[in-house]
Amino acid sequence: MAISPEMITQAAIASFAQSDNPRLKQIMQSLVKHLHAFAQETHLTEAEWMAGIQFLTATGHKCDDVRQEFILLSDTLGLSMLLVAMHDGAQSGATEATVLGPFHTPDAPAMASGSDLSNSAPGEPLYVTGRVLSADGKALAHARIDVWQADAEGLYDVQRSELGGNRRARGVVESDAEGNFSFWSVLPEAYPVPTDGPVGQMLVANGRHPWRPAHIHFLIEAQGYQPLVTHIFREGDRYLDTDVVFGVRPSLVGKFVAHKKGNAPDGRVMTEDYWSMDYAFKLQPI
Amino acid sequence: MAISPEMITQAAIASFAQSDNPRLKQIMQSLVKHLHAFAQETHLTEAEWMAGIQFLTATGHKCDDVRQEFILLSDTLGLSMLLVAMHDGAQSGATEATVLGPFHTPDAPAMASGSDLSNSAPGEPLYVTGRVLSADGKALAHARIDVWQADAEGLYDVQRSELGGNRRARGVVESDAEGNFSFWSVLPEAYPVPTDGPVGQMLVANGRHPWRPAHIHFLIEAQGYQPLVTHIFREGDRYLDTDVVFGVRPSLVGKFVAHKKGNAPDGRVMTEDYWSMDYAFKLQPI
Repeated sequence: MAISPEMITQAAIASFAQSDNPRLKQIMQSLVKHLHAFAQETHLTEAEWMAGIQFLTATGHKCDDVRQEFILLSDTLGLSMLLVAMHDGAQSGATEATVLGPFHTPDAPAMASGSDLSNSAPGEPLYVTGRVLSADGKALAHARIDVWQADAEGLYDVQRSELGGNRRARGVVESDAEGNFSFWSVLPEAYPVPTDGPVGQMLVANGRHPWRPAHIHFLIEAQGYQPLVTHIFREGDRYLDTDVVFGVRPSLVGKFVAHKKGNAPDGRVMTEDYWSMDYAFKLQPI
Repeated sequence: MAISPEMITQAAIASFAQSDNPRLKQIMQSLVKHLHAFAQETHLTEAEWMAGIQFLTATGHKCDDVRQEFILLSDTLGLSMLLVAMHDGAQSGATEATVLGPFHTPDAPAMASGSDLSNSAPGEPLYVTGRVLSADGKALAHARIDVWQADAEGLYDVQRSELGGNRRARGVVESDAEGNFSFWSVLPEAYPVPTDGPVGQMLVANGRHPWRPAHIHFLIEAQGYQPLVTHIFREGDRYLDTDVVFGVRPSLVGKFVAHKKGNAPDGRVMTEDYWSMDYAFKLQPI
């Protein structure tokens, strides 16, 4: 009797049965099962398999110290956001989470609440006000609010080698006794994920655009609460429904309000038009 | 309402809906579905996901012109043999197929049937006789029998840089009017797949050995028939039941017979002990 595909799958699953790491065994056996199911369901040909081998090889070769093409692949296949949704504890009224993304740095400058974080980043001025609350509405003082974002040209400071490591549109502020914080920055704009590698080719081949809707990143930490990693997206962005990495949730779309030049709410005299955005972040108790 | 993992999966599948390549769309949507099902079934953590990203990156970095670590990964997860089994037409009495493997070369030397292909390869002498038949038993004349194998040290000629491209234990012979062919070579021995890369680490982490049971590769072509890519494995090898790439089928285990020195069946006078193996290959009509 000829060996059937199902017998190969069973043999491959069984080959991991002797692992003395039960969790690794579980992961490998599930991986083999689903990988084989994919090949069977699509009746994958040898030529298609070879194209897949070549795609994975090129993706690996694109990775270096500053570029992670496999994370980009995970992002664009929705796997990264799936993990966030699987592990997000936002059922209980806390703000929804999204991914950290590749542009967070551990060394953002600490600044007084109300400061201008933009550091000459190109873009229209934006005044952000917010509150840090518990999921049931209690104000959280001394919360640490770590903020980063792309500028009007769609670039993060870490993508601009001409800055020599200086930080722009990035900083850390702290909430006051009532949980309030504020800062000035610039209006974020939509930007494409890197398209000069295999993942960019995959998007093109499938008729997908590479754009992320405009957003500001927040990492908020308060004692006794789960850290919150999220974005606030810009209302009205044309890519809100088709974010290439599937990060948008309706609850995370912020209202960005346009203002004429003059006195801003914090007393700053604005000689150009500006924007404001206000958002209340709710953290989950540990 | 918070976004559920299922909504992320649906959005990722829908992102490929606009592809104007229906086959690519089918493959990508199936891939996303099974990749997400794997992550959900294992409740994969972010740390495990990152370990996977790092494993794939290291696998890509191991690939170069002469080393294909992703094919080795496919082989050791059973995917390569699954494809062979899926596409093998051996239902109708033809010899079962296995994979071509990484050691085939298109330029093996053509030699008269009965020749010694070993070219001083280390190993005990082996006399192989065979017949090339149609699936229903008709003798196939002028079939092309391309043969290659590892030597007693478990190495193929292409792995020995000291040979400078010379061929050893490799050659092409032709069947006669009755479909018969023969050649001399050396007794094949078991050998490990390369273990100095991420796939080798994966095998160790899971308590798997890296060995393939001893075998001889055959690629047999005859006009009007499907090319047959297969191995004949050595009866009694300790790795027959645990081939690291899942290539063994019971029908492909050959009987290797030990002989004392003296006159061999073809009249050759053997001054040392030797082996013989006989096998009838059956090809599928096109």
